[in-house]
Amino acid sequence: MLNKANKLPLYYQLYEIILNQINSGIFKEHDKIPSEREFCDKYNISRSTIRQAINELERDGYVYKRHGKGIFVCPKTLKQDLFRFYSFTEEMKKLGKKPTSEVINFEIINDVKIANKMKISINDNLYKITRLRLADDEPVIIETSYLPVNRFPNLTREKLDNTVMYDIFREEYGVDFSKAEEIFKPVITRSHEARILNIKNDIPSMMIERYAYEGDKIIIYSVNIARGDKFEYRVILNK
Amino acid sequence: MLNKANKLPLYYQLYEIILNQINSGIFKEHDKIPSEREFCDKYNISRSTIRQAINELERDGYVYKRHGKGIFVCPKTLKQDLFRFYSFTEEMKKLGKKPTSEVINFEIINDVKIANKMKISINDNLYKITRLRLADDEPVIIETSYLPVNRFPNLTREKLDNTVMYDIFREEYGVDFSKAEEIFKPVITRSHEARILNIKNDIPSMMIERYAYEGDKIIIYSVNIARGDKFEYRVILNK
Repeated sequence: MLNKANKLPLYYQLYEIILNQINSGIFKEHDKIPSEREFCDKYNISRSTIRQAINELERDGYVYKRHGKGIFVCPKTLKQDLFRFYSFTEEMKKLGKKPTSEVINFEIINDVKIANKMKISINDNLYKITRLRLADDEPVIIETSYLPVNRFPNLTREKLDNTVMYDIFREEYGVDFSKAEEIFKPVITRSHEARILNIKNDIPSMMIERYAYEGDKIIIYSVNIARGDKFEYRVILNK
Repeated sequence: MLNKANKLPLYYQLYEIILNQINSGIFKEHDKIPSEREFCDKYNISRSTIRQAINELERDGYVYKRHGKGIFVCPKTLKQDLFRFYSFTEEMKKLGKKPTSEVINFEIINDVKIANKMKISINDNLYKITRLRLADDEPVIIETSYLPVNRFPNLTREKLDNTVMYDIFREEYGVDFSKAEEIFKPVITRSHEARILNIKNDIPSMMIERYAYEGDKIIIYSVNIARGDKFEYRVILNK
């Protein structure tokens, strides 16, 4: 309950109470939180104090307002540690989210620029595979991967449906990944990407280029467009 | 020179020639590159081939068009490796850029939310220091740092002018940084930030929160807004 003798400002006490209720799961993602009037009645504080608490929660990305409907809990940000080779599937499971993927494009191409990035011959054919990655059925990442056909013969779209792509690479193709290099850049979400991700155009995305290595060879190059309102990436830098 | 017997498409041969001239410094940042007509005369290829090469260079962020003025070389992206504790000053020097900083705000505050993030008492006073960081006199990052006054007594704005902040911490305050934690998120550049960074509003920024530790204590918390058109961040993920 609020304590007027406490050194913490009242609005911040309320901020913390609501935040704890979000973090502990009493209020879940997209749940409606009580109205100003209900908070007034419950805590016997002014509407302006309540408004301040809610504005701070909104500014910090914990709640969102829907005009005429009320105040709702934002979905949690997905925190990704950049430490070891990680997979979307495993990371989502750790966060208690159901990971799924849809192959939205599968073709064989020839592309000099991609070949140069992968340091392979410009004559080598490449699979270009675009997948939409979902967490609890919500689209969160568009991933476009390029793989040399000669390293992954007979790969088909069907094989990739409802499976963990990296498992197929390891199990069917005996790939032993040695490391990955990832490059992060904030980008404007392009309109066709925003449509696929079901977000507004003005939410920027994180573009992540990944080079996955087998020994010292790049065998997968992928470009990920990850929703900026969904993900944050953490590194630990030592001395 | 272009080779019509080469397997590489002509536009791509031209793309690579221009890119090599940019990378080797023949064309420098903001230099005007030759016009379509000049390329025509020099290489004896069609204008549509030249246009394709230039469009690809533009799409890949190597050149920009200015209406009625011509085609210019984009400034290089600054590549930051996320591996060890790094400083802006040292990183810029490595890239051959002159790093400078301007203190744009210096105040002593009390802020419950920042105190909670830093896991210090809410009664502790904090310096709030905002610096604009420049590379070759171009603004690239707005950094806002929070430091407990009791760990850094008698810090003044004057002390920070024209000095490396981390050097003062090490030399005057005997700080021995143990590690830093950084959190990356793409964000919309807010209008006052865009104005300070001298960029258009529609270029997103990377928001980087840094927690710098001395032993197991957080002694600096900073929020950086880094120009999205300027920086990219790289990590190596091991098995």
